[in-house]
Amino acid sequence: MATIRAAIVGYGNLGKSVEKLLAKQPDMELAAVFSRRETLETDAPVLPVDDFAEHTDKFDVALLCLGSATDIPEQAVGFARHANTVDTYDNHRDVPRHRADMDAAAKEAGTVAIVATGWDPGMFSLNRTIADALLPGNEQHTFWGPGLSQGHSNAVRRIDGVQKAVQYTLPDEDSLELARQRKAGDLDGKSAHVRKCFIVADEADHERIEHEIRTMEDYFVGYQVEVTFVDEATFDAEHTGMPHGGHVITAADTGGFNHTIEYILKLERNPDFTAASQIAYARAAHRLREQGVSGAFTVLEVAPYLLSPTPLDELIARDV
Amino acid sequence: MATIRAAIVGYGNLGKSVEKLLAKQPDMELAAVFSRRETLETDAPVLPVDDFAEHTDKFDVALLCLGSATDIPEQAVGFARHANTVDTYDNHRDVPRHRADMDAAAKEAGTVAIVATGWDPGMFSLNRTIADALLPGNEQHTFWGPGLSQGHSNAVRRIDGVQKAVQYTLPDEDSLELARQRKAGDLDGKSAHVRKCFIVADEADHERIEHEIRTMEDYFVGYQVEVTFVDEATFDAEHTGMPHGGHVITAADTGGFNHTIEYILKLERNPDFTAASQIAYARAAHRLREQGVSGAFTVLEVAPYLLSPTPLDELIARDV
Repeated sequence: MATIRAAIVGYGNLGKSVEKLLAKQPDMELAAVFSRRETLETDAPVLPVDDFAEHTDKFDVALLCLGSATDIPEQAVGFARHANTVDTYDNHRDVPRHRADMDAAAKEAGTVAIVATGWDPGMFSLNRTIADALLPGNEQHTFWGPGLSQGHSNAVRRIDGVQKAVQYTLPDEDSLELARQRKAGDLDGKSAHVRKCFIVADEADHERIEHEIRTMEDYFVGYQVEVTFVDEATFDAEHTGMPHGGHVITAADTGGFNHTIEYILKLERNPDFTAASQIAYARAAHRLREQGVSGAFTVLEVAPYLLSPTPLDELIARDV
Repeated sequence: MATIRAAIVGYGNLGKSVEKLLAKQPDMELAAVFSRRETLETDAPVLPVDDFAEHTDKFDVALLCLGSATDIPEQAVGFARHANTVDTYDNHRDVPRHRADMDAAAKEAGTVAIVATGWDPGMFSLNRTIADALLPGNEQHTFWGPGLSQGHSNAVRRIDGVQKAVQYTLPDEDSLELARQRKAGDLDGKSAHVRKCFIVADEADHERIEHEIRTMEDYFVGYQVEVTFVDEATFDAEHTGMPHGGHVITAADTGGFNHTIEYILKLERNPDFTAASQIAYARAAHRLREQGVSGAFTVLEVAPYLLSPTPLDELIARDV
């Protein structure tokens, strides 16, 4: 099998993780990084993103490492018109619209676009669909964390007197157990999750800062909130990573018998795992195109063997 | 969408679970049970299995609820020559041979055969392949249990003086934690699992029975073994179920960061969950045939959305 030549579009945290993890793939290589900047700290060829369409002979699939807020909605279709693409668009409610737009562009161009890869959407979507398909009448719950919440960390940082801050969200253990026993029916996101803040601030400000956090509408009111003040050395040593993860729990009764399917991710570096998923689907996008297919696909539509660098015969002998 | 008409071939524990769970599907119905026996305790039409080929107009897909020891190897190809089939063949090492035989028969007949569904093989296979594809250089371990081991329970029952007995196998908690931390490299099946026996026997025989268990080559020697004698009432109340399950743990380092994917099944009734998987793949087999496809497929080759009774558009809006 010829090596799959990958291009990265966008060189932020995700793009850098993709570069790092492409180097570990036995069947892929990094052909180019497309960026608005002229120079980047990479050994790969850097090409201007505006010239993307002129360079499509240099790669087989483009990994769009762009933000979901505006970049993907505005730019992704333009890339799909010229090359196979894989994105990690994470605006759940807008995925049907995005898939439809990408499908039209990809079908016209004869390319393949795999949308909304990563872990949620992505691996969690896959698990929600499969578990639900197996167990009719199930109760299904998704829990997130322990994970760094960017938006909430920023909200805490904006409070007067806060020098450094992070906020982790994690599932409440009791809620996980209720979900496994099909007793979490009325749990909502607020009661099922704990929000833990770690903050560096002068001691004189502690009481006021904690009060401002606990009374912040839309962010902390209604949640179980824990506020811990730490010194700067502790903060720098323990709270500068990007952990995340979560649980998809599906439970059903088959007539007096409980059955639980639980899928757990524990990720020490969120963008690395998002990149890992995006890369596997990049492999699948290239293969689908080789099979003569075109159009847009979600993770639900891709046969699992297409994700693996191992040939199907070997997979069947090894994993089945 | 027209209702999918399912037939059951074989009416043991698995066939009965399939019948029970087909009744919960919004899009499927039980059309017939094929058996060697003339009468069965079912409301469904019972047809002679020898006349299978004459009745293929009555159903869309046949769920082969037959044993893996001899029935599937000897009979499955014969069914695939006449109808779409789904089996739960669980002889892992022989799946490539079985798939090849079923593929030849199904391609010639223009039918679809999905092989080795269930949970291991089946859901565990799917998770092994996907997790391995995402995380190059991973350490992957499968642990089984807590689950009833039929073969080992029978071995204990054959010991003189044993009145009733069950043997459960379950993963050792320390081994699970080592796997999550990528430190389980040299763990083998024996040290990673505990074998727990619950036995009814006269007190005079206890010491000898326990000794015979602990010294039984191939079954118990080398394992962590716990033997508990219970009275008959306790046994009948607590040890007549068919629990099973397990963990697939995949962990990898992405450059100083640990990432763990863990898939856990906790099943109070093993045949019910095997049936749940088989039914979802029966739905997929029918749909693949409707798409004009023929041949044999493992779970690795089936796009996940095909398992669900929910239309793809709704799945994308709900689960992605």
